[in-house]
Amino acid sequence: MTSIQPQEQYVIGVDYGTLSGRAVVVRVSDGAELGSAVHEYPHAVVTETLPGSDTLLPPDWALQVPQDYVEVLQKAVPEALRSAGINPADVIGLATDFTACTMVPVKADGTPLNELPEFATRPHAFVKLWRHHAAQGQAVRINALAEERGETWLGRYGGLISSEWEFAKGLQILEEDPEVYAAMDHWVEAADWIVWQLTDTYVRNACTAGYKGIYQDGTYPSEEYLAALNPDFAGFVSDKLDHTIGQLGSAAGTLSPRAAEWTGLPAGIAIAVGNVDAHVTAPAANAVQPGQMVAIMGTSTCHVMNAEELSEVPGMCGAVQGGIVEGLWGYEAGQSGVGDIFGWFVNNCVPPRYVEAAAEAGLGVHEYLTELASAQAIGQHGLVALDWHSGNRSVLVDHELSGVFVGQTLATRPQDMYRALLEATAFGTRTIIEAFNASGVPVTEFVVAGGLLKNPLLMQIYSDVINLPLSVIDSQQGPALGSAIHAAVAAGAYPDVRTAAAAMGRVRRGVYQPIPENVQAYDALFKEYKTLHDYFGRGANDVMHRLKAIQRASSAGRSAAPADNTEEMEPAL
Amino acid sequence: MTSIQPQEQYVIGVDYGTLSGRAVVVRVSDGAELGSAVHEYPHAVVTETLPGSDTLLPPDWALQVPQDYVEVLQKAVPEALRSAGINPADVIGLATDFTACTMVPVKADGTPLNELPEFATRPHAFVKLWRHHAAQGQAVRINALAEERGETWLGRYGGLISSEWEFAKGLQILEEDPEVYAAMDHWVEAADWIVWQLTDTYVRNACTAGYKGIYQDGTYPSEEYLAALNPDFAGFVSDKLDHTIGQLGSAAGTLSPRAAEWTGLPAGIAIAVGNVDAHVTAPAANAVQPGQMVAIMGTSTCHVMNAEELSEVPGMCGAVQGGIVEGLWGYEAGQSGVGDIFGWFVNNCVPPRYVEAAAEAGLGVHEYLTELASAQAIGQHGLVALDWHSGNRSVLVDHELSGVFVGQTLATRPQDMYRALLEATAFGTRTIIEAFNASGVPVTEFVVAGGLLKNPLLMQIYSDVINLPLSVIDSQQGPALGSAIHAAVAAGAYPDVRTAAAAMGRVRRGVYQPIPENVQAYDALFKEYKTLHDYFGRGANDVMHRLKAIQRASSAGRSAAPADNTEEMEPAL
Repeated sequence: MTSIQPQEQYVIGVDYGTLSGRAVVVRVSDGAELGSAVHEYPHAVVTETLPGSDTLLPPDWALQVPQDYVEVLQKAVPEALRSAGINPADVIGLATDFTACTMVPVKADGTPLNELPEFATRPHAFVKLWRHHAAQGQAVRINALAEERGETWLGRYGGLISSEWEFAKGLQILEEDPEVYAAMDHWVEAADWIVWQLTDTYVRNACTAGYKGIYQDGTYPSEEYLAALNPDFAGFVSDKLDHTIGQLGSAAGTLSPRAAEWTGLPAGIAIAVGNVDAHVTAPAANAVQPGQMVAIMGTSTCHVMNAEELSEVPGMCGAVQGGIVEGLWGYEAGQSGVGDIFGWFVNNCVPPRYVEAAAEAGLGVHEYLTELASAQAIGQHGLVALDWHSGNRSVLVDHELSGVFVGQTLATRPQDMYRALLEATAFGTRTIIEAFNASGVPVTEFVVAGGLLKNPLLMQIYSDVINLPLSVIDSQQGPALGSAIHAAVAAGAYPDVRTAAAAMGRVRRGVYQPIPENVQAYDALFKEYKTLHDYFGRGANDVMHRLKAIQRASSAGRSAAPADNTEEMEPAL
Repeated sequence: MTSIQPQEQYVIGVDYGTLSGRAVVVRVSDGAELGSAVHEYPHAVVTETLPGSDTLLPPDWALQVPQDYVEVLQKAVPEALRSAGINPADVIGLATDFTACTMVPVKADGTPLNELPEFATRPHAFVKLWRHHAAQGQAVRINALAEERGETWLGRYGGLISSEWEFAKGLQILEEDPEVYAAMDHWVEAADWIVWQLTDTYVRNACTAGYKGIYQDGTYPSEEYLAALNPDFAGFVSDKLDHTIGQLGSAAGTLSPRAAEWTGLPAGIAIAVGNVDAHVTAPAANAVQPGQMVAIMGTSTCHVMNAEELSEVPGMCGAVQGGIVEGLWGYEAGQSGVGDIFGWFVNNCVPPRYVEAAAEAGLGVHEYLTELASAQAIGQHGLVALDWHSGNRSVLVDHELSGVFVGQTLATRPQDMYRALLEATAFGTRTIIEAFNASGVPVTEFVVAGGLLKNPLLMQIYSDVINLPLSVIDSQQGPALGSAIHAAVAAGAYPDVRTAAAAMGRVRRGVYQPIPENVQAYDALFKEYKTLHDYFGRGANDVMHRLKAIQRASSAGRSAAPADNTEEMEPAL
């Protein structure tokens, strides 16, 4: 219950995704979304040649152009204001969230290196997008060395530092373009760089510092460790990374006159510390209490949850003090393949008659298969699958794992396999929840955000498999709403994010309820999943590793090697 | 080298398949095929309602109409003679081969019961085609009781009597329509019934008596055993089954005046003892020496091979004295799914863009996928599959097993999965060959017949996987040629089938040679197959059985149960 303000106030949330940025105008009193606008990045994702150059990029590279992010402020924010029909003078704050780990190499004043003429054709001078996967070699060394040295921080990341994160990407620059590395004064999360552009102040947000920057208990990996990786990397933290940390929901500063001109907003309003698209969704769904697990389900699934205590949950992506909201331990876990497995299946494994029948019924293929699969009783398809087509980034933390189907017969139909894949991802989620429960961080509520919540069969399957009610975020633009909540807190409209989330977050509670007989039926299938999970995932049969090794050796001899994109972690929101 | 005869002589081979009969005119001196004709059975396979009746058949029934077989003699034989342009007076013999186990219930004079007005609408009065699978309950009891009683003949069949065979199908009649059972004077293989129609003489062929009729060492299962199955079944052998046995290649009799009129052939020419399509293919490929394994590769694969000695090879379909050629032990083994797995994949798992690209290239989808798969190095797809979509009828003898895919990623393409399935069936063949080798019945040459030999990638994969040269039958109509060879022997043109096969059989030896580096590469993948084979097939993880049980329980509650056609053993030649 919120009281009506004599004069309504507004905040702006800006969500920076992989291909575009979205600005949403939100009412401070109740979180109502009054207007929004999207601006697509002119350069999208740079994977082949640099803009205005014929410099070819190697495989697995994914770059962006920082100026594209500024254009979102210049275009989407004013347009959102217009569509909301409010007076910009009533806006009291703005906050942003970003993909992560997306990194900008900059000079001391924040100028991205790619904007300097001498580096305009140097790939390493550009933004490395989260899904830049060319630092895998560096990541392997980072992990091996950390394990060898018994670095205590490794356990906070489930035993694995990703090639997507700050250290692997930074080390790659040093080793592949030392001049760019030397010229770089700061190695900055895009989440923080955009706030820097808005406020003229560089503040490093606690979320990415912890989850992507290995910042734990007030320190980073030691100089000795870094020197052992590469002697020239010894100063990486002190020279390039270390900077004032800002807590989520705090103000990083105020809107600069320059940025006020870009956006049409009043100079001097509060700008919140930067944030990450997945994590900021938790307050948007009003799910920031301990035990409320928020699953942002898209191409992959990111799970975020708060807890009072620190526990090392096997296979989580990270546990960070204040990583989601100040004062609580924020846990992140993930399933590296979810919607993209369904997408792979629909693109590669569904025959023409199904595609035609879907079109005739006026449905997408996903919807059509879902409709057919809905008609089945649990277990009727006779299948069990493992959802490791993108590796396993949950309890097993093994990117070399791969997908499995067991039970196909000549009578197996596309809808059978599709349903088995839906179920496999639910079993994957249950495995994560059980790991949290067993580690003393119990999951008490499951809240879904992200594109997959529109599939009611999938939602019911999840509820039945995990035997928990499912709550569903009640916003089409969860991350932007979450940012707006942070803007309201940064502006002082609420004392903290938890209070603001309660007033402004939008969730429908208990939309899906576990059905007892389904829960029981899925218990039996989950047992089969678990047996196969442990057999293939815990060393009893390392066939998947061997197949990958054979594949690499074999592909090395041929040019037509299949691309293997196994490490995409960030959900497409 | 054959000498030119002053007056060429000819023989006719008639091959009775599942949907049609084919007659081929063959020159005795060298096996040249001079003309052929096909006649489709007017009633094809009866699975829904009886002809001229609205009697509905239960699921899994598959019947035929005996008169259709006679029509093949009346139509195809004269047409083949015309197309060969020879003088029918120069034909010295005719032989037939048939699907098996296909059974005709007849009166003492050979009249099929369905031709009697009182039984014209009784399903059990019709021919039970090989793929009639409604006697599964009887087969289960036959096997359980034989195992319980330690019946020695069970080992000759790899431990499993099929629901397709004479005893299960006969017991089904007794238990479901005792009047038909009582009226039936003989329970006759169609292979023998057609010879009876040609000669007016009933001779039971040694091949089906042994492989399908449990006739071993001169005896059938005992009355005590039969009575324990069902007291009214005690006399089954003596009353319905037992009859003079004829050896393969012998004459069953001579062409009757009535059949001479049907066929246009001279009355009195030799008619050979009946035979089976798979087994008769061995002489057609001139592969009747010990150690020459003939694989008839179609929807499923049937392996036949001769040996001097009797050994009990785990999982073989049967070992029968004189079962392929007189004087040798004939072994039969099988893979219950081969081409039908590829067919299932193409029909259910290939997306529209592939189907369109195949059409644009003027190729079938199988050919298109084969072309794409051919471009890969071994192991490049990163997959291993188990070929048990139709269960396993080779060394594991378990129809409740099912298919497996391991290694799928988001980069896995249809051609990758297709190739993995081709390879899986080759691994299945290697498993059978290794079982023969280990049992003291070594396989020294591999000879391929059947429709799949037209896929050169598949052939090379088999040669590489089994590390043996592949010979290929050099006839489009192997079974009919094999029958013609038997006709020549029955007519006295050759002293025995082995001699006739050497003169008339047609084979291209060593068409595919194992490539040493491929052999080595496949050894590594076969090791993975074998590990999964034993894990899923030998009790370490009975997930497949449990999934089937769950599926049955679940389907029982719903009407839309998927059909499960797991027991099709006979190859589509």
